[in-house]
Amino acid sequence: MVQKYGGTSVADPDRMRAVADHVARCRRRGDDVTLVVSAMGKETDDLLHLASQVSKAPMGREMDMLITAGERKAIALVSMALAELGVPAHSFTGSQAGFLTDTNHRNAKILEINPYRVKEALANGVVPVVAGSQGVSTDKDVTFLGRGGSDTTAVALAHALEADSCELYTDVSGVFSADPRVVPAATKMATITFDELLEMTATGCPKPAMRSVEVAHNYRVPLHIRSAFTWEPGTLVIEEEPSVEQPIIRAVTHDLSESKITVLDVADKPGVSASLFRAMADANINVDMIVQNVSEDGTTDISFTCPTEDLERAEQLLGESGGTIPSIGARTITSRRTIGRVAVVGAGMKSNPGVAAKMFETLADAGINIDMISTSAIRVSCVVAAEQAEEAVQRLHTAFGLDG
Amino acid sequence: MVQKYGGTSVADPDRMRAVADHVARCRRRGDDVTLVVSAMGKETDDLLHLASQVSKAPMGREMDMLITAGERKAIALVSMALAELGVPAHSFTGSQAGFLTDTNHRNAKILEINPYRVKEALANGVVPVVAGSQGVSTDKDVTFLGRGGSDTTAVALAHALEADSCELYTDVSGVFSADPRVVPAATKMATITFDELLEMTATGCPKPAMRSVEVAHNYRVPLHIRSAFTWEPGTLVIEEEPSVEQPIIRAVTHDLSESKITVLDVADKPGVSASLFRAMADANINVDMIVQNVSEDGTTDISFTCPTEDLERAEQLLGESGGTIPSIGARTITSRRTIGRVAVVGAGMKSNPGVAAKMFETLADAGINIDMISTSAIRVSCVVAAEQAEEAVQRLHTAFGLDG
Repeated sequence: MVQKYGGTSVADPDRMRAVADHVARCRRRGDDVTLVVSAMGKETDDLLHLASQVSKAPMGREMDMLITAGERKAIALVSMALAELGVPAHSFTGSQAGFLTDTNHRNAKILEINPYRVKEALANGVVPVVAGSQGVSTDKDVTFLGRGGSDTTAVALAHALEADSCELYTDVSGVFSADPRVVPAATKMATITFDELLEMTATGCPKPAMRSVEVAHNYRVPLHIRSAFTWEPGTLVIEEEPSVEQPIIRAVTHDLSESKITVLDVADKPGVSASLFRAMADANINVDMIVQNVSEDGTTDISFTCPTEDLERAEQLLGESGGTIPSIGARTITSRRTIGRVAVVGAGMKSNPGVAAKMFETLADAGINIDMISTSAIRVSCVVAAEQAEEAVQRLHTAFGLDG
Repeated sequence: MVQKYGGTSVADPDRMRAVADHVARCRRRGDDVTLVVSAMGKETDDLLHLASQVSKAPMGREMDMLITAGERKAIALVSMALAELGVPAHSFTGSQAGFLTDTNHRNAKILEINPYRVKEALANGVVPVVAGSQGVSTDKDVTFLGRGGSDTTAVALAHALEADSCELYTDVSGVFSADPRVVPAATKMATITFDELLEMTATGCPKPAMRSVEVAHNYRVPLHIRSAFTWEPGTLVIEEEPSVEQPIIRAVTHDLSESKITVLDVADKPGVSASLFRAMADANINVDMIVQNVSEDGTTDISFTCPTEDLERAEQLLGESGGTIPSIGARTITSRRTIGRVAVVGAGMKSNPGVAAKMFETLADAGINIDMISTSAIRVSCVVAAEQAEEAVQRLHTAFGLDG
């Protein structure tokens, strides 16, 4: 199995010893274990802060060289802690583990994995300890897979090694029906489907990086989201709904990390949104919800959400009249920096058309105005005022019968 | 030219900006600059401390993975600081810079350098920023060249690039005739020969790592030891004495970092000291002074000094009767943990037989007992009590007419 340990799970020497002890126990039970480890605690933030002190706009290549130093420290120390317990262990950087990526620094994509050194270690009874979220590019430069990339490393490696499962260890005990800090009655789910987890992009519960869940889904790698503090069984992510009896709505999620941009009076003709969102994609801005209003007088309004950290860049792109994004026509841009995104998620929803209606009614009863709406087969998302997001989650958790 | 910046020179963002500013000025003056950078400030010590918290005896392979993370951070940040000033810069790890080493972790030796990526950067007008003291082994593992290895990296790279000089930037302004903290009248030397610098293995003045001076000497790479704080001209290390008029004795050095071991009653027959010091060499213990007393009754005493950090290991090796070091015969071991090593150094000494005598007289006049003596063509070293070392330096500095 592949076990991935996040930053809080290896935050200090004590935590590393606890992880080593757990791995030693797994080995005694006969499991072949491969570890994927993130940087210690807040180290990545510390490195970003250092960079901001020497440069206003650090180059991606150098940022990746800097940030990947964090995981290197962690894999070396975890390997030492394992050896101290008599468990032979070898650390591997992303490059040494065979992660070949594209040249898109800060957010590189894995092109191919050739983990022959990892396999060799396993064959020799050695625990491989692999640095999360890193690789080497086709230009032979060090690359970083982005924040949360260790999950992707773990899942991709589990697939490449044909591991029977991938355990994602974190600081809470599983996936909950809502953020327990907001909804005390929230309950831990023993199982969840890939589709549901993919739609729960925004939750206070431990959220494996979207990319990793997509990779796990595509390659059918069974995930287990669990705690490196209590070591109790967590939430299994599985292929199909385990039972037709399960409730329609599984979880209510919320997220305060996005901003909303509205482009007013853009030409309502083919190719306009294509050129707009192509420009965003080229600038590596993850656009999330997109809503286009009804056309009036040959122009229309397009609203979308993106991570708040990308807001300035998105506004700059849109503000550069004509040049960067041609053919949109004259435009006015408005934005709201802080918004609340609230969603209800459940695989059973597709056969039940009343979910959206019930959600809107519940919010209306609470006097919460809805700013944007977006739906998928198993999710309904609403943008509301940030300061009303928590109340919205509480009301919806109760309304959909999720209180434990 | 190659410029090497030690830990204090890049200890924080302010220092890095100062270095970047200096490099930008050198470039404006038309110099092609390649940088070699050490880990920031006390980072290597911090990493060693972390390792000691998870493991009593960390493996060399993992230690090197851990420690080399420090230089990676530094090269990325310095590259960013350069770019911020409009100077294009690319960081390179030891592996990326083409440093191939043996597999002797913690203290790897360079086998070969293929700096094609560094040359490519220079050809494109980009400043290469190379991580000091690291490489990749013939087993494809990350290796560390040892403490002070950045000097070696810089000199070896200067040779491989056929650079016209190698500047070693540090926190003091050059090489002094004695440690100015001990001898206020100590003076900075404008030039020094390689031989003299090699003999000054122990001085409170900035001391380029022995290995780097040896490499510079062998390949005739001109060294310039200077300050990254005042930026004033420092001490040039040159091939020959610049003038026959220069004083015989150039400097008085001292060192408190070594211990002394005496092996009593070893068999006085061929091969004994060979097997003793072969065992030390195999254990990577740097033996320094060696003195063998006159034989009595078919047995003899051998004394030697080694770094205090290696004392326990040396004692263990000697204590394991027979097994590790065969053929020495029965033995008793005594050791002194703290000793003072004091030396007078000067290339003109070889033609002046009175130097040693004057040194012993000066120490005798001061009531300082001499424990061991060792001489070379341009140096006389004495081991004295640690607490008398500073007084010995002061007396000798005056006696040899070095007071400024």
